[in-house]
Amino acid sequence: MNAVAEALPKTFRSPDTRQMANALRMLAVDAVQQANSGHPGMPMGMAEIAVALWKRHLKHNPADPDWPDRDRFVLSNGHGSMLLYALLHLTGYDLPMDELKRFRQWGSKTPGHPEVGVTPGVETTTGPLGQGFANAVGMALAETLLAREFNRPGHEIVDHRTYVFVGDGCLMEGVSHEAASLAGTLRLNKLTVLYDDNGISIDGHVQGWFSDDTPQRFAAYGWHVIPGIDGHDVEAVSQAIDEARSSDRPTLICCKTTIGQGAPLMAGTHDVHGAPLGANEVQATRLALDWPHAPFEIPSSLYERWNAREQGAAAQQDWKRRMDAYRHAFPAQAAEFERRMRGALPPNWRDAAHALVRDADHARQNIATRKASQNAIEGLARVLPELLGGSADLTGSNLTRWKDATDVTASSERGNYLHYGVREFGMSAMMNGVALHRGYLPFGGTFLTFSDYSRNALRMAALMKTRTVFVFTHDSIGLGEDGPTHQPIEHAASLRLIPGLDVWRPCDAVETAQAWVCAVEHDRPACLLLSRQNLPFVPRDEAQIDGIERGGYVLADWPGACERDARRVVLIATGSEVALALTAIEPLKNEGILARVVSMPSTTVFDRQCHAWRERVLPEGVPRVAIEAGVTAFWRQYVGLKGGVVGIDRFGESAPASELYAHFGVTVAAVIDEARRVAA
Amino acid sequence: MNAVAEALPKTFRSPDTRQMANALRMLAVDAVQQANSGHPGMPMGMAEIAVALWKRHLKHNPADPDWPDRDRFVLSNGHGSMLLYALLHLTGYDLPMDELKRFRQWGSKTPGHPEVGVTPGVETTTGPLGQGFANAVGMALAETLLAREFNRPGHEIVDHRTYVFVGDGCLMEGVSHEAASLAGTLRLNKLTVLYDDNGISIDGHVQGWFSDDTPQRFAAYGWHVIPGIDGHDVEAVSQAIDEARSSDRPTLICCKTTIGQGAPLMAGTHDVHGAPLGANEVQATRLALDWPHAPFEIPSSLYERWNAREQGAAAQQDWKRRMDAYRHAFPAQAAEFERRMRGALPPNWRDAAHALVRDADHARQNIATRKASQNAIEGLARVLPELLGGSADLTGSNLTRWKDATDVTASSERGNYLHYGVREFGMSAMMNGVALHRGYLPFGGTFLTFSDYSRNALRMAALMKTRTVFVFTHDSIGLGEDGPTHQPIEHAASLRLIPGLDVWRPCDAVETAQAWVCAVEHDRPACLLLSRQNLPFVPRDEAQIDGIERGGYVLADWPGACERDARRVVLIATGSEVALALTAIEPLKNEGILARVVSMPSTTVFDRQCHAWRERVLPEGVPRVAIEAGVTAFWRQYVGLKGGVVGIDRFGESAPASELYAHFGVTVAAVIDEARRVAA
Repeated sequence: MNAVAEALPKTFRSPDTRQMANALRMLAVDAVQQANSGHPGMPMGMAEIAVALWKRHLKHNPADPDWPDRDRFVLSNGHGSMLLYALLHLTGYDLPMDELKRFRQWGSKTPGHPEVGVTPGVETTTGPLGQGFANAVGMALAETLLAREFNRPGHEIVDHRTYVFVGDGCLMEGVSHEAASLAGTLRLNKLTVLYDDNGISIDGHVQGWFSDDTPQRFAAYGWHVIPGIDGHDVEAVSQAIDEARSSDRPTLICCKTTIGQGAPLMAGTHDVHGAPLGANEVQATRLALDWPHAPFEIPSSLYERWNAREQGAAAQQDWKRRMDAYRHAFPAQAAEFERRMRGALPPNWRDAAHALVRDADHARQNIATRKASQNAIEGLARVLPELLGGSADLTGSNLTRWKDATDVTASSERGNYLHYGVREFGMSAMMNGVALHRGYLPFGGTFLTFSDYSRNALRMAALMKTRTVFVFTHDSIGLGEDGPTHQPIEHAASLRLIPGLDVWRPCDAVETAQAWVCAVEHDRPACLLLSRQNLPFVPRDEAQIDGIERGGYVLADWPGACERDARRVVLIATGSEVALALTAIEPLKNEGILARVVSMPSTTVFDRQCHAWRERVLPEGVPRVAIEAGVTAFWRQYVGLKGGVVGIDRFGESAPASELYAHFGVTVAAVIDEARRVAA
Repeated sequence: MNAVAEALPKTFRSPDTRQMANALRMLAVDAVQQANSGHPGMPMGMAEIAVALWKRHLKHNPADPDWPDRDRFVLSNGHGSMLLYALLHLTGYDLPMDELKRFRQWGSKTPGHPEVGVTPGVETTTGPLGQGFANAVGMALAETLLAREFNRPGHEIVDHRTYVFVGDGCLMEGVSHEAASLAGTLRLNKLTVLYDDNGISIDGHVQGWFSDDTPQRFAAYGWHVIPGIDGHDVEAVSQAIDEARSSDRPTLICCKTTIGQGAPLMAGTHDVHGAPLGANEVQATRLALDWPHAPFEIPSSLYERWNAREQGAAAQQDWKRRMDAYRHAFPAQAAEFERRMRGALPPNWRDAAHALVRDADHARQNIATRKASQNAIEGLARVLPELLGGSADLTGSNLTRWKDATDVTASSERGNYLHYGVREFGMSAMMNGVALHRGYLPFGGTFLTFSDYSRNALRMAALMKTRTVFVFTHDSIGLGEDGPTHQPIEHAASLRLIPGLDVWRPCDAVETAQAWVCAVEHDRPACLLLSRQNLPFVPRDEAQIDGIERGGYVLADWPGACERDARRVVLIATGSEVALALTAIEPLKNEGILARVVSMPSTTVFDRQCHAWRERVLPEGVPRVAIEAGVTAFWRQYVGLKGGVVGIDRFGESAPASELYAHFGVTVAAVIDEARRVAA
């Protein structure tokens, strides 16, 4: 039990407790009413659970929401955001009442669903159900691994817990299965999930569509399950949390609650889930709760009772003392721990990154970019101990594991490689949680086609700007015989449409190394789209190597002094198709057409370059042909209506890769045809 | 027990059985070896299970793979495709040995993963793990509902079962949770799942990442679970299937197997999962299995033993007699049943469809398109009893339920509306299964953003060309306060990139009605992207109404005789942004710019029109501006590099919808600015 918890009285059921919960309720009710939008039902139903956790157990310091050893709290049922905002406000975070009054308004710190980076104390962005739960599993995993890596006997500098609120919706979502199953296997005992078992979802009483025996289900995952807790009994919830804290497994606490508890007419119905109560019911709720205060008015006695700044400061101070002792005993480890928790790169990073790319250039290997990626990982792992790799059961195909990697297991002393199992969505959402926790740089692999399974987690990574690296191999029809279910067609293009997500499709080992370097350096998630098949090494000069990080650059240029009336064309290609473009140069020249080849490993990065760079690479007025083994529509933004695109606008087929390229017309001949057609 | 099963001897363990299983094994081994690609491990491991099911229980007629009352068989672990091809070949389907020899080759009927429509007897396309299982739940649901709707006392014309093979991968996937949970709640007792519990997945022994107590997990879903079956004991598996057939709940049969059983060195290892055994091990396997025959050689005695044509014909004949009796007693119902199973539309469909669109036109309502969709559903339901609606727990928001709809429950006598719960992926994959089964036209709703959760099921619908309708409401920042997690930005564009998926974003009630009509008529899946907010009715003439089904048409044109030197522009808009374009006409005219407004409710449909139509709508040489509250890059294919696009290339924010439109610059003023900039 931590210092905060020990300082509290054991018995907890009191008028104060009741009004502490009602303060949460009424802030939610009034804010939703004022916004004329929002979800009062969940905050009203989970108010006592929140009191039990936040007053009694949660180790946090409102004055320093980023303190590394704080407990993590995740509101997976994020539509109940007002509960969290009320908690943050009352316990003393920098979230003044004015912000609560501007719930769901433009520019407020109280958006409709909790958003990390917007509101101090919010650990992850939630709303898309089930993912907060999976984020939390990732956080608990990061804590466990950090503790194993950095703690020393008598020096427990990493020792915090992860608490999650979930509702029926989260538990119906498939991702809850994936994350819970893995959390059970890994025995993440510092993870405690509080289930708001209110029997109601938007469509009504869940019994008609959700009749799982949830305790039994989680027991099947190897969890410690505490069933049948009265969620409106602070003491009972608190005792259950105590029990969870001493378990050697992750714990699910099933709390029976009434949605909208306190609303005389609407409690227990789905009407209270996602709409304001209305003036009459708000008034009736005030009476029923014996809450005489005006909207957004909290008596100072309750503020005092809720305020967690003093306890938080003490807890953090206690940790600081331990950290100082650790720093004294293990100065190098302490510095490393602090660097990792800041998310800073090591001092030798730039040199190492430079060497990584140059080494790939010197090696001149004709290898698959998935293999080049593995080589890059080998290099990165030597300088970045924060790498936490993994794959959704395709380790040998994604080539995500490096030589000195150690598997993470329930009992392994250390570990930096996760066998996530066939759980693409769970893996990705867990990776986001790991990144949010800080301390590790997570990456994980699957086939590009199955990025579909995790797509919303990729979007959430982009929205949250987490440094998460998604390794997607088998990036085209080049995977061959597995057929259309496994052959990406629309995936590269559609991933590039997600705002803030960097998508790389490198053409050889050098571009792959640079893509990895950029993925590590950029403060945003990245997808690496990698080939199954071998790709030829492309020689480059220094300027070209430097150009890679700009997303698009000239890989083979027109002769310096073009003849005046020469017909010219720009061939834009990515990944495995760059070789086609390069091969087309010579035959085109024989026809009197001069071709520049632009390698475009990342359109998303290229689009962020200054106008001058983009114009230098793609000069206006010169016709363009884009080549990529995927949907053609995407490339119109680069080649225009009259340009050419060599690509594939239908599903793939099952056959050897080389045959597929020929059958689908992604060939040098097709490039030449298009270039001939458009050349000016 | 059906006629086929009754005709068989009770005891089944015999040398014949052993060699029947080995025939499956060796066909898989030899075909994978010949293709130098594929997955021998699963067919070798599940061979006896396949013998038990296909020889003893499966009701099917190889001569008529589309017979309505056949049992459905789904290979959810689709990488084991050779097992299915071997079964189809040996039992007498139109799949000659030559096709097995061309496993995984261009144009063969034996692609890498099973594909419906390519191979007779394949019920659904599998490979993306977990989805076959969910498809099967949809098939079992369709069977149950059809039986409830059409069977009469003494007339059981619908009475078949759905069998599924699943592996560890399927059960790790989240979608297995969603589908299994709902199957349990709905007590789909004619669903039998045979679990290939071999303890191996691609990364190795699953214990390190998959330690679920699977029997307990499925018991928690309310399934009947038969644990601990020896998967290499035909008799034990067969008895378990017997037990499943008498259960009142869906059944999971857990079969302990050895992956690659029969391969002396590689059995029980992950090496045998996804690669050829190699010549030496193939030879050793031959010896170990006492299989002296050459590759692709099957002794005629085994062919005879496997052949199911006679039994199949008898079973189908038996059903035909029952169907004839039914037709005699209930001629109207019989005709309706046959129409539904053919997937044909009713004779009065065209008139009804015409009326539906015209009624919407006459009503002139300014309503949200989600409401217009509900109105359309009301109209459709009157003429299409095959409608099977539903929502992933957003019924009141998606407006997917109609007045006379009846909820499907475990015990409801009839039902045509599913509360799928918060299970977007499970819902979509189940809908695909329902559509494949035939008899119903499934549609289901969620918020457009959460189409991400089900994205691969949408892709599979497109690949399989199922008539499945996905209703995606809250289609833009117009949803307002719920914020960026709920506001689609890239979704409309990225759905349009999936080959063969029709995407509609109608601008008012008339276009919504027509979109529904097209979704019903087209032999492919459709997504309907619908607004939360009210949209103004747009008056149209008959030609314009007719134009809607072409995906894009002129909604407001230039004056017939444009002055010669007038500056002109085409404004292309979809959905809620059409009103902005229409409003811009007048102010632009005042500036001397004549604007045509093209409403483009479906780019995917428009792209399929003849050149003449496309040119008529978007005449070459006239500058264009596209307006859509989503990513702009998509529209470059219509407006070119110099055209204008008014859209949003960042994540949304939490605020009232009207403020968001203003803040993000999706306004009439912005349309005018862009039009002014580009007008020629």
